[in-house]
Amino acid sequence: MTLIVFFRHGKAEPKMPGVDDRERRLTEEGAADVECAARLLRGRGVVRILTSPYRRAIQTAEILARTLDLEYSVVEWLAPDSGISVEDLPRLGVGDGYVLVGHNPWMEDTVTELAGGFLELKAGGFAVVEVESFKAGGGKLLSLVNPGVISICQR
Amino acid sequence: MTLIVFFRHGKAEPKMPGVDDRERRLTEEGAADVECAARLLRGRGVVRILTSPYRRAIQTAEILARTLDLEYSVVEWLAPDSGISVEDLPRLGVGDGYVLVGHNPWMEDTVTELAGGFLELKAGGFAVVEVESFKAGGGKLLSLVNPGVISICQR
Repeated sequence: MTLIVFFRHGKAEPKMPGVDDRERRLTEEGAADVECAARLLRGRGVVRILTSPYRRAIQTAEILARTLDLEYSVVEWLAPDSGISVEDLPRLGVGDGYVLVGHNPWMEDTVTELAGGFLELKAGGFAVVEVESFKAGGGKLLSLVNPGVISICQR
Repeated sequence: MTLIVFFRHGKAEPKMPGVDDRERRLTEEGAADVECAARLLRGRGVVRILTSPYRRAIQTAEILARTLDLEYSVVEWLAPDSGISVEDLPRLGVGDGYVLVGHNPWMEDTVTELAGGFLELKAGGFAVVEVESFKAGGGKLLSLVNPGVISICQR
């Protein structure tokens, strides 16, 4: 059984003129959401964290790494518009227990391609997919956790 | 926005000769799973809990009601094989903020009918669906929480 976690970066600062989109940072609320969501993955077999090189994704990966006591690696193909498809994931070394930290629409589209259906992946949310085969319809959704829909933390 | 929570009863005692299926009780682990999952629904606008009349579902509803400080009502149509379809739900009074406690395959089938895709609804798990229209494809999956896939409680 190959479990892959698709983790969308937390809420970030709004787009501003003169600020490179790559440099937008998590808000305080965004960081808190990620930390709470990350705790739900403790002890669940996560072995590796890969992240987009954008600052808001790296900050998300840092929180995940700290919470799960792992390291993380930055990969360019998780940046927006990298053109990576579901079929490319095995070639890129993605396997059981990997967490991918990235951006919509790619994250939501990829989960939907694997498991089908209509779903929402909010900022700071994640989807756990059991992948049988890296192709359309090749996966099953095991969990989808979106901040704001359920109370992730007892704040 | 109409949010409906489909909550599957927790893990129950195995089927045994001489024990009516209606009377099977939650295991200790099943009750703990439900209590943990229920906490995630606190403060999220749940207004009403309806449950199947089977004992394992009623026990699940009792835990939900206590955790969410609500009452619950028993409805025969949430029993297995009642033949209720998605289209019947509005006529049965189901609306925004309702939690339905019932059984597979109905629960998983109904979530899949509304939101599409391939997903798993385990014992003690729940799905939050935003329903636009009570018909096939009329909903969007907002969260799917399955015990054992994520760490619902910090035990």
